[in-house]
Amino acid sequence: MIGTIKDLKIGKGQTVMGWIEKVRDQKSIQFIIIRDRSGKLQITVEKEKLPKIAEIFSSISTDSVISVVGEVVKNDFVKLGGIELIPEKVEIVSRAEVSPIDAESSIDQRLDYRWIDLRDPKKRLIFEAQTYLAKGMRDYCISNGYIEIHNPTIMSNESEGGAGVFEVKYFDKKAFLIQSPQFYKQMAIAAGFEKVFMTTPVYRAEKSFTKHHATEFTGFDIEIANVTGVEDVMKAEEELIHAGLKEVHDRLGERIKAELGVEIVIPTLPFPRITMIEAYKILNEECNYPVEEGDDFDREAEKHLCDYMKKKTGHQFFFVKEYPMAVRAFYSMKKPTGIYSETFDLYYKDVEITSGAQREHRPEQLTENIKKKGVDPKTLQSTYIDFFRYGCPPHGGLGIGLDRLTMYMLDLPSLKETMYVFRGPDRTSP
Amino acid sequence: MIGTIKDLKIGKGQTVMGWIEKVRDQKSIQFIIIRDRSGKLQITVEKEKLPKIAEIFSSISTDSVISVVGEVVKNDFVKLGGIELIPEKVEIVSRAEVSPIDAESSIDQRLDYRWIDLRDPKKRLIFEAQTYLAKGMRDYCISNGYIEIHNPTIMSNESEGGAGVFEVKYFDKKAFLIQSPQFYKQMAIAAGFEKVFMTTPVYRAEKSFTKHHATEFTGFDIEIANVTGVEDVMKAEEELIHAGLKEVHDRLGERIKAELGVEIVIPTLPFPRITMIEAYKILNEECNYPVEEGDDFDREAEKHLCDYMKKKTGHQFFFVKEYPMAVRAFYSMKKPTGIYSETFDLYYKDVEITSGAQREHRPEQLTENIKKKGVDPKTLQSTYIDFFRYGCPPHGGLGIGLDRLTMYMLDLPSLKETMYVFRGPDRTSP
Repeated sequence: MIGTIKDLKIGKGQTVMGWIEKVRDQKSIQFIIIRDRSGKLQITVEKEKLPKIAEIFSSISTDSVISVVGEVVKNDFVKLGGIELIPEKVEIVSRAEVSPIDAESSIDQRLDYRWIDLRDPKKRLIFEAQTYLAKGMRDYCISNGYIEIHNPTIMSNESEGGAGVFEVKYFDKKAFLIQSPQFYKQMAIAAGFEKVFMTTPVYRAEKSFTKHHATEFTGFDIEIANVTGVEDVMKAEEELIHAGLKEVHDRLGERIKAELGVEIVIPTLPFPRITMIEAYKILNEECNYPVEEGDDFDREAEKHLCDYMKKKTGHQFFFVKEYPMAVRAFYSMKKPTGIYSETFDLYYKDVEITSGAQREHRPEQLTENIKKKGVDPKTLQSTYIDFFRYGCPPHGGLGIGLDRLTMYMLDLPSLKETMYVFRGPDRTSP
Repeated sequence: MIGTIKDLKIGKGQTVMGWIEKVRDQKSIQFIIIRDRSGKLQITVEKEKLPKIAEIFSSISTDSVISVVGEVVKNDFVKLGGIELIPEKVEIVSRAEVSPIDAESSIDQRLDYRWIDLRDPKKRLIFEAQTYLAKGMRDYCISNGYIEIHNPTIMSNESEGGAGVFEVKYFDKKAFLIQSPQFYKQMAIAAGFEKVFMTTPVYRAEKSFTKHHATEFTGFDIEIANVTGVEDVMKAEEELIHAGLKEVHDRLGERIKAELGVEIVIPTLPFPRITMIEAYKILNEECNYPVEEGDDFDREAEKHLCDYMKKKTGHQFFFVKEYPMAVRAFYSMKKPTGIYSETFDLYYKDVEITSGAQREHRPEQLTENIKKKGVDPKTLQSTYIDFFRYGCPPHGGLGIGLDRLTMYMLDLPSLKETMYVFRGPDRTSP
């Protein structure tokens, strides 16, 4: 394998491969800047001494990839690390055509050529950050006894009632793509796995075109057993996110600040939390935004709440817990009395980023919940309700959209810019 | 969250949750064994002293889940850690119906109730091992500068020619599920990411019913830039697998030996390697198994080769490299002269577990290769060939079936037993 620019040593016989960044072709001398992930390098060509090599560089296009053998020498006048390379042998290993996109291109034009768009080191940094975010979260899970599962993404029935599900032609039958790994992580609890995590694609067949919608994205999900209420699940989530952000901060915090102008804050534990009842009170009394008890929040209410909590706590995160059962999924655990449930949402900066809950593990109650949502329990019997008929401890969990968390962590404008390759209603390529 | 059995301390006021493993109901005393992931515990009930609790246990079913508060006392006569719990309060949190499967059930009956099947700690150990296998491989990647990408699994065209691809109803259009993340990892190389890894579902719409076929499984893939031949890719793979197996060995080697009777061997580096030409020679001259130069191997040839290499090297792994171009995918790099290519397969124990290659990064040559395979290059132009038109370094990579690697690592009989939830032509549930 050919070494990187950062691995070069002073002396002869050095080999390097890189992308042409710029060629400054002067009367008697050429300065060529090449780059790789590790940095940039100046190649200096005295035309009279190296006419054949000079000829190569005089006609080479930007973003072509070259392999060079030569001598690396010190030169204090060179900005790039005080070194330059005097080539002996140059080979064009990939000749670039003129790029079809540039800084003026629209996001959709750029997505058509995503591999060129991503050459900007600032954009690559998004994925370096996401790598450490996932690493921090996975390491937290593993060191706390979680088992990783790789759930299937094809299932025989429409998971949560049918709306927004992609259908797959499965030989001579129909199958569907999962909207979440919900059923499979709860199944692991019924299997006695106690704590599980997964990173999995999830799918939404929804014609939504907002900055935070995609038809396929990556879910980071966990599920834990033996919980005594939603508080246990919230504690797991705050520790998980703390671990992820700490890893990003410690590995890349300075680069992210320098290159993207964003400060990665390691959040203090515990995160602030309020109940839904407290949230109603805050909105009605502190924010002058009238809401009725039992209602879900609209976007405006969320914003008021975020502003209030940010001012009050100075924290980037807060939980709202105990939503009305009526606005949550059938698998949520209702509190023994009243209208509320063992559920929560987590807010980050000014937006809701995850939902979590204790689950209903009692099959009779679950069947009742399903009926109340207008779904026929028979459709979920063998693929879901049956999980709870042969013994299953109380449990709960949550799902984080990894792309959304990355987007808000780095203050990016849209999932189109955040996801490696975006998928939306109008986009299935490249 | 309620603590585990292993966390119990001698004294009063201890709380634990567990599954009923066995109830021995004697005349005046009951011995109840409960279990969780951390171990087993004896609960002892003197019937006369605790008539109400005795009543609960006299009718409780196996696999029901209970929550118990009581006093943990030392008792040297108790096999399970020399302690027992004298209950003060018992609550049945989940009452189990009689299990529909038992030790006599067929694999397909067991898969219908996979969550019960997986309660066997030996089966859970498979996923604990896989968790560390993936962790070891991911940590290797991250500490060597790889970026994790989360590729899409839905694409607009049929990736490698069309056979065996699942079709998705994508709003009013057709889309397809990926057969491998091949295109997306090569795209990362064209984007200058240099080294990437991913864990991703991959799909095969094939009616194959062998022990090592599934319609959906998990791929662990890597791709690296600036390679000078297939040797660089093989080196990456052997280091990757070494790291994964070392992690499994160090964390779980003893348990795996005790519970599954399998020795996890950390393979020495480098793995043995032979060229295809050497393999032909071995088969013809050493194994008395006639093969023609240019042919691919059938299963019988593979077996002969594995036997020979095992005897000769004593190593569990070996590479066969430089396959004839005619038997490899169009994206493989052909050697400059002759019929061979910069490709390899890796064998583990007695079976081929991964394929890898240097890729063809020159768009003209790639187009030629595609034509030779009888595919119209136009169908792959904007979603693949174009990646290489705007500058792209030489590169290569490989894909490992994580489930298959786990299966062979633990000497399991079939993917149905290895995968968390198996997917085959006749199985999309639970």
